Amino acid sequence: MSPTSNRKMSPVSLAKVVIDDRFWSPRMEVNRTKTIPHQYKQCKETGRIDAFDLTWQPGEEPVPHYFWDSDVAKWIEAASYSLATHPDPGLDALLDEVIEKIAGAQQPDGYLNVYFTVVEPTKRWKNLGMWHELYCAGHLIEAAVAHHEVTGKRRFLDVMCRYADYIDSVFGSEASKRYGAPGHEEIELALVKLYRATGDQRYLNLSKFFLDQRGQKPSVFEREFEHLSPEDARINRHFFDKETGFDTSYCQDHLPVRDQSEVVGHAVRAMYLYSGMADVAAETGDEGLLAACRRLWDNVCRRRMYVTGGIGPSRHNEGFTKDYDLPNETAYAETCAAIGLIFWNHRMLHIDGEARYADIVERALYNGALSGISLDGERFFYVNPLASSGDHHRQEWFGCACCPPNIARLIASLGSYIYSEDATDAYVHQYVSGHGELNVSQGHVKISQQSQYPWDGEIKITVDLHEPREFGLNIRIPGWCREARLWVNGEETQVSPILQGGYARIYRRWRAGDTVKLDLAMPVERVEAHPNVSQAAGCVALQRGPIVYCFEEVDNPVPLHRIVVPRGAQLEAVYDEELLGGVVKIQGEARLMDAADWGHELYRFQPAVMWPYPITAIPYYAWDHRGPGEMRVWIRSL
Amino acid sequence: MSPTSNRKMSPVSLAKVVIDDRFWSPRMEVNRTKTIPHQYKQCKETGRIDAFDLTWQPGEEPVPHYFWDSDVAKWIEAASYSLATHPDPGLDALLDEVIEKIAGAQQPDGYLNVYFTVVEPTKRWKNLGMWHELYCAGHLIEAAVAHHEVTGKRRFLDVMCRYADYIDSVFGSEASKRYGAPGHEEIELALVKLYRATGDQRYLNLSKFFLDQRGQKPSVFEREFEHLSPEDARINRHFFDKETGFDTSYCQDHLPVRDQSEVVGHAVRAMYLYSGMADVAAETGDEGLLAACRRLWDNVCRRRMYVTGGIGPSRHNEGFTKDYDLPNETAYAETCAAIGLIFWNHRMLHIDGEARYADIVERALYNGALSGISLDGERFFYVNPLASSGDHHRQEWFGCACCPPNIARLIASLGSYIYSEDATDAYVHQYVSGHGELNVSQGHVKISQQSQYPWDGEIKITVDLHEPREFGLNIRIPGWCREARLWVNGEETQVSPILQGGYARIYRRWRAGDTVKLDLAMPVERVEAHPNVSQAAGCVALQRGPIVYCFEEVDNPVPLHRIVVPRGAQLEAVYDEELLGGVVKIQGEARLMDAADWGHELYRFQPAVMWPYPITAIPYYAWDHRGPGEMRVWIRSL
Repeated sequence: MSPTSNRKMSPVSLAKVVIDDRFWSPRMEVNRTKTIPHQYKQCKETGRIDAFDLTWQPGEEPVPHYFWDSDVAKWIEAASYSLATHPDPGLDALLDEVIEKIAGAQQPDGYLNVYFTVVEPTKRWKNLGMWHELYCAGHLIEAAVAHHEVTGKRRFLDVMCRYADYIDSVFGSEASKRYGAPGHEEIELALVKLYRATGDQRYLNLSKFFLDQRGQKPSVFEREFEHLSPEDARINRHFFDKETGFDTSYCQDHLPVRDQSEVVGHAVRAMYLYSGMADVAAETGDEGLLAACRRLWDNVCRRRMYVTGGIGPSRHNEGFTKDYDLPNETAYAETCAAIGLIFWNHRMLHIDGEARYADIVERALYNGALSGISLDGERFFYVNPLASSGDHHRQEWFGCACCPPNIARLIASLGSYIYSEDATDAYVHQYVSGHGELNVSQGHVKISQQSQYPWDGEIKITVDLHEPREFGLNIRIPGWCREARLWVNGEETQVSPILQGGYARIYRRWRAGDTVKLDLAMPVERVEAHPNVSQAAGCVALQRGPIVYCFEEVDNPVPLHRIVVPRGAQLEAVYDEELLGGVVKIQGEARLMDAADWGHELYRFQPAVMWPYPITAIPYYAWDHRGPGEMRVWIRSL
Repeated sequence: MSPTSNRKMSPVSLAKVVIDDRFWSPRMEVNRTKTIPHQYKQCKETGRIDAFDLTWQPGEEPVPHYFWDSDVAKWIEAASYSLATHPDPGLDALLDEVIEKIAGAQQPDGYLNVYFTVVEPTKRWKNLGMWHELYCAGHLIEAAVAHHEVTGKRRFLDVMCRYADYIDSVFGSEASKRYGAPGHEEIELALVKLYRATGDQRYLNLSKFFLDQRGQKPSVFEREFEHLSPEDARINRHFFDKETGFDTSYCQDHLPVRDQSEVVGHAVRAMYLYSGMADVAAETGDEGLLAACRRLWDNVCRRRMYVTGGIGPSRHNEGFTKDYDLPNETAYAETCAAIGLIFWNHRMLHIDGEARYADIVERALYNGALSGISLDGERFFYVNPLASSGDHHRQEWFGCACCPPNIARLIASLGSYIYSEDATDAYVHQYVSGHGELNVSQGHVKISQQSQYPWDGEIKITVDLHEPREFGLNIRIPGWCREARLWVNGEETQVSPILQGGYARIYRRWRAGDTVKLDLAMPVERVEAHPNVSQAAGCVALQRGPIVYCFEEVDNPVPLHRIVVPRGAQLEAVYDEELLGGVVKIQGEARLMDAADWGHELYRFQPAVMWPYPITAIPYYAWDHRGPGEMRVWIRSL
């Protein structure tokens, strides 16, 4: 294992965390028993698994797609994480079987990619800009690292080391190697994982090489473009806007990474790139990379992020547009992008140690990422709009199936987002009941927590350790919380004097059985967007705790734009066991623009009559589970 | 001339109306001295005029387009109307020259179409659905009738009668003739004009034949589609959605015309169709056509029309979508469609005699149609959005140049929209200073009016006639007016007891010099849209008299969505001689959401601070004449 000297703290690995949570445990169980089998079935039935047998012949349908490998890889990663918390011999064996297929697809030189082995074998590394070879390699590496970490088996890891060694023999700054960077970033962060798993510095160097290849003039993608046939170049031409110049901002290639300040292009690509930049910065102390990450964070989190943690408003580039442009009904907000935002913020959190990153993880986790999967675990959103006229629904699978296994691996790995440790301190980032085994002040500490989060803000934390020891216990005070109270062993402690980077830091000599009680006030809040967000002007969103709410027509059977929530309206949080698996819903009396009195005129000089109207809002993540109809997050206010 | 027995009233022809109006006379002068010469120049330089020489050879650029003929036709019509009010020997001679070119392009059998004579001579009548032959014929017929009516010359009329005779020999229900209808309606209304000009019943019958061809099962367009080559059929396939079925609602071919109730498809096509239906109904007393027109009117004017009189919100089909769907920034609202709405309402007015039709003529005329032309008369909007981020500007010409000559012919023919007459009554529909010579109660009556309309609601009307005579003088009380007062020879008369169909009917024995003073109160009104219009929810538009206002960034240098006009805000109308050719602007104090105090958060729980902010609104028709920047019609309200 490598040192991670430039990180303020280290994550606590999955195997050391137990989740026993009323909100999350059922979801993880659904993930394990429904989602992961469902996705295996989809991968199997669509040919993605057996494609690794390399038996495909020209003319056969389906033709393996050039990013199929990544879907299987993410499924392996999700299944591996699941094994970490729920041993399952059947799944273990199935993983071994799939991994053998993958291993069998490796070429004598170490290369491993179905499409460019059987479908277009002459085109290996010919179109890095668009053909996802390095992206697929990255996901396979992540899967191999996860499988090794969880099972201790080296088979897949060895295969992927061989592939990574081969890639390292092809790409690099040495005269004997070639230029190039992945059009879809992913391998950068995967190579850092491989470096951490193996300690082999070459993988870190290769990751840094790929980062440094971005933003050159001329672009590496422009250089390779010149060698493409017109047919092969068509997709590059489309995304790189070849008609009006060579603009590779679609894949964040507009500037050298250290010079970037504005989040541009495809949102998932951007998140994976920034995650890789954070990883390399964490390992190398590269201040230029880190400063860029912080500037990019400011840009996306302060100007280009939906209240749900969704990012990338435009369908056109599946990505970013301009500051404060956050349309609702046409919001793209790909599930993978919200997940990528979590990945990146999780990394930034460990470097900078500031709660604002964990706040973003929480915002995306409970809202714009979780919305990507149905309560039954078998249907998925690729696109997560903030308003719908009723024609947008989750699907069982997609031709481009990146999102389903991405949300599966996120949920399966939830344990790794809860706690961190450093030499002197323990950290609690997310409020998920269960416990973590930490190593703090050169000793073992078990931290347990118990709450009804996210529905209730009272959290009980218990410290357990063999003998009393001094250390700091850092408890995140969420950015959404306006009133937090804290008790240590029953005695109230003021929060503000001990607040450091958004955490209440309780430094003391801890003894076994010490308790901390945290009470986060959770009133129903009316969220206002920055005045520059034209699409939210005159509207509020409702939020309670970390949960962002939405209005659905099934609860409010009127055109939703006619509902107005006055400032003074009483809004009440009500836990409903029967609703959507058990949620706190928000109820209250708003006003409704009446159409019945209006008459047949389309325009008139008198405003519509407003009547009292009872409203119900539900958590955004749970929308689209009942009758079809309208949905809105931003509701008119007065 | 034919009887028009099914019309309640008859229009007063252009030659009998003199306009001497502070608002309109300068516009008509610009139209005559700038717009019409500019458009001739454009037609000439782009090859549209000389295309009629039929000298085009394969390989030459530009290739005549299959609707070029219609652009020249509308220019001739505009120029002819202009001659009616401003004799101009040079223009008269130029018209003769162009008409000779057109006459020279007529084929021995009477056919007259540049494209299908020189470019694709084998494809005559092969694709009525998309290739605009009958549409071009219709515009040429309208031009010929206008030229004949104004100049008395028969040359062009005779040419077009020959063409119409030829068309009549091709199309019809007789066994020897073929099925078919124009994919772009226009010839239906033109043939009724030709019938009225010549008295030849065949033209009326042919118009009715084309109307009756619509909405058959299978569609006439589907029948012809089967004979098209894949290449020729591509455009039909696109607009008729051939992938999922044969849907010809794009050109109102989804139902027989008498069964239609919903305005669908391409908006200009729809307006020209309904105009033709009204014309045939007026001539034949066809109650089924008339009932359909009234249903369609309800649908468009009560559910699918912008407050500007613009129609057809979607760029996709240049047309209609669904009830109450009126997006602002993406509003298509083609200039030609607003003009078509005027044409159709002008016809409905004469059939039903109700002021609501003249109200729509006024709404579109002063707003969504007039916006189509710049104050200098040489730039044009094709698309008239109700909000702009600053990137939409008028252009000198278009490849598809239907709108510029359409607005030119509308302005040149303004005189025909002002007065009407029937056996016992005179009507004043529009308040344009000048006079009209009417024939009422079997005698001549001159009606003069004097006002500063649309900036002021005080209108003075003077009646002049040789000897006293009893008749009804009907004066429209606009739908926008909440308080109208009336004086006859200085003595006030209550309006409501004499209100008939939206007109104040003053029936008396009129003597020369009798005066009527009408005072239409013109406060600044806040227009509210029907509660079903989601895109206007929480917003108001400002209107004063017939003029709809908009906010431009040049007057209000802030993001316009941040401006809120509270209900109680004092709004003042101020005439500004220097502004945009002299307009009444609206000024007042509104509120502005402040961004300066907000800080760097994207979301927060406290609303933005609101400060008093002075606002200025200008007439919508005059937007985009100063610096670039945002524009909005619907402004937030509280």
